[in-house]
Amino acid sequence: MTWVPDAAFAPDQPFGPRTLPYGVVDAGDADGPRVAVRVGDHALPLAPLRESLGDLADLVSGSSLDPLLAASRVEWGKLRARVREVVNGSAKPSGASLLPLTDVRGLLPFTVGDYVDFYSSSHHAENVGRIMRPETEPLFPNWTHLPVGYHGRAGTVVVSGTDVARPYGQRRGSDGPHFGPSARLDIEAEVGFVCGGPVARRVPTSDVAEHVFGVVLVNDWSARDIQGWEYQPLGPFLGKSFATSVSAWVTPLDAFAAARVPVPDVGHPRVDYLVEDSPWGLDLRLAVEWNGTVVSRPTFADMSYSCAQQLAHMTINGATVRPGDLFASGTVSGPSVDQRGSFLELSWGGRDKIDVGGETRTFLEDGDTVVITATAPGEDGSVVGLAEVAGTVLPADGG
Amino acid sequence: MTWVPDAAFAPDQPFGPRTLPYGVVDAGDADGPRVAVRVGDHALPLAPLRESLGDLADLVSGSSLDPLLAASRVEWGKLRARVREVVNGSAKPSGASLLPLTDVRGLLPFTVGDYVDFYSSSHHAENVGRIMRPETEPLFPNWTHLPVGYHGRAGTVVVSGTDVARPYGQRRGSDGPHFGPSARLDIEAEVGFVCGGPVARRVPTSDVAEHVFGVVLVNDWSARDIQGWEYQPLGPFLGKSFATSVSAWVTPLDAFAAARVPVPDVGHPRVDYLVEDSPWGLDLRLAVEWNGTVVSRPTFADMSYSCAQQLAHMTINGATVRPGDLFASGTVSGPSVDQRGSFLELSWGGRDKIDVGGETRTFLEDGDTVVITATAPGEDGSVVGLAEVAGTVLPADGG
Repeated sequence: MTWVPDAAFAPDQPFGPRTLPYGVVDAGDADGPRVAVRVGDHALPLAPLRESLGDLADLVSGSSLDPLLAASRVEWGKLRARVREVVNGSAKPSGASLLPLTDVRGLLPFTVGDYVDFYSSSHHAENVGRIMRPETEPLFPNWTHLPVGYHGRAGTVVVSGTDVARPYGQRRGSDGPHFGPSARLDIEAEVGFVCGGPVARRVPTSDVAEHVFGVVLVNDWSARDIQGWEYQPLGPFLGKSFATSVSAWVTPLDAFAAARVPVPDVGHPRVDYLVEDSPWGLDLRLAVEWNGTVVSRPTFADMSYSCAQQLAHMTINGATVRPGDLFASGTVSGPSVDQRGSFLELSWGGRDKIDVGGETRTFLEDGDTVVITATAPGEDGSVVGLAEVAGTVLPADGG
Repeated sequence: MTWVPDAAFAPDQPFGPRTLPYGVVDAGDADGPRVAVRVGDHALPLAPLRESLGDLADLVSGSSLDPLLAASRVEWGKLRARVREVVNGSAKPSGASLLPLTDVRGLLPFTVGDYVDFYSSSHHAENVGRIMRPETEPLFPNWTHLPVGYHGRAGTVVVSGTDVARPYGQRRGSDGPHFGPSARLDIEAEVGFVCGGPVARRVPTSDVAEHVFGVVLVNDWSARDIQGWEYQPLGPFLGKSFATSVSAWVTPLDAFAAARVPVPDVGHPRVDYLVEDSPWGLDLRLAVEWNGTVVSRPTFADMSYSCAQQLAHMTINGATVRPGDLFASGTVSGPSVDQRGSFLELSWGGRDKIDVGGETRTFLEDGDTVVITATAPGEDGSVVGLAEVAGTVLPADGG
């Protein structure tokens, strides 16, 4: 028996003491935004726990995770151990309070530096290739040799729960471009990695845990019609930059120790800097809910490049990585139809109707809500969760 | 006669009292980095001028332009007028000091939010299309309808004078990719726009001066072999992300009032949101020096999209723009051979040798230095300069 409600310790509780993700919550009171860990369905603010956390409390006493991200893996480990002791303790520490999640608002918990989006599911990349470029090979020759990626817009990364207005833009028409609200608004279910630790160049795969603090879920909202018209030759731009949603809670990478699996073979040896000494693929099982109906269960273990390989690639040219940089996996799609992580794929380019709780859809309609969740195997048969990323589509405004 | 040396007032002085760019300098003394304006060949720190600048001194008393960028166009105008009064004054204000530029180091003067790179020279885009995709039309169908662009890496934007190590990466080989230092390291001579003012969505072309604080020169270093292998289908990534250099001095947009010209026709009417009420093309004349030899004189007036059109496009989908966001024009190339803003074009993909002061080059060799400068017509026959962006190539390190 600890001072924390029993429910947090149930074997199937995805936010038990083996998860302990960090976030920033606002309870609407005079204390303002504050760093907290999630324990079950409660937020535990950390600033009042100075007696238990010692000096490490300085890292989590503000209104952002930025100081924590700028610390080191050693400090992350110590803090996590102390927080777990607090949660497992029999007596409630003085000053501690558990705030029901229904009473707080999660804020974007860190300042996003650069945002990079990869494209590391062979199933997704092949599906998109077949849909968008049916006359050619679905994968370009580079795909099996490097994790293809691009920079996205950091300034429009928003926290789960933020509404997303349908974007305006140009799309291809038979007599030149048409301008108006996107008619093919889509999601991409992804996993994101939040960087921390010292600024670094050329991070080898073996050092990923020094430079990745934690994991979030990402919905990389995508306007397929805008993207399809604009993307040649420099890649996606306005079709993606209107909003990218991330979980309100960042789960430490350490929480996924029991979920590590090798990445799938790509048919030939990897270039040296992409070789892993130990596997960094992750057995995360995602679920995509569209207006309350689960329409897909993407499998992250099927991704062809791990976070370690992505970070090694991103920095091999000499580019630095900073605390707060965010990189996402690319759409997570497994091999089967019901494992596809975008509606472009589920509807095969809009050809097939998707059953959404009795209604049918191809792309998103105004008012639709998408919620992405995920779990992973934890130690001793436990379950480790990734906090949901949710968003509702609003009608196009202004324009 | 003012208290400032006469040289600053010569008619052909590009950094006279009609220019007054802002930067951050470090004189290596106890005062540390401080905001200054450039007057001729001197830096004038602003914090000591509180008596002349009044409350506005708060915007320029720190070690970064960030507070100034976060202010408003009205404040930018007032501050500029007061600084000009100081420079034009007969008596030296108490506390004022002019530091020779040779005695100070220019630092990156602001925190870069998002970095976007456009592709708005038809001459550049056509040249690159002909070189890279000789079998197809040089321009994609979207090019004349929208300013094609992509997000670059904000965290590797560096200030003029920073050495640039040759990047490592994969490039296409006959038997699969080869890995090693880039063998086709190039420059792109560009003009960059530094955003400021309130966070905004959908900035109409008529509001550009509310949201663009000033102008810099940009060298978008490019590894053509890395880029050529990686860029399909999501655009440039590691071929660009190792470094992007910008001027140490940001020239206020207002300084270019006499340089405004209409953008060239694109052969059909512009989509509504790209129409300009008044022209925002700029008659900037660039010069690219390679190891001291001017190899090109790119003409910015030939760009097909203005900064106002680029900002309108970048935000039309609902994406926000923040103070510190930086967007660059894309390589500035004019219609003639000696106006090309990249060595890819000057050497026609490496086919032709470029004469560089008696030596020949195609792409950059270790130890090479590139300096890009620019001037524009100012009021009353004066000249307005953009501060140089310079960099020297170092051999590949580590890897």
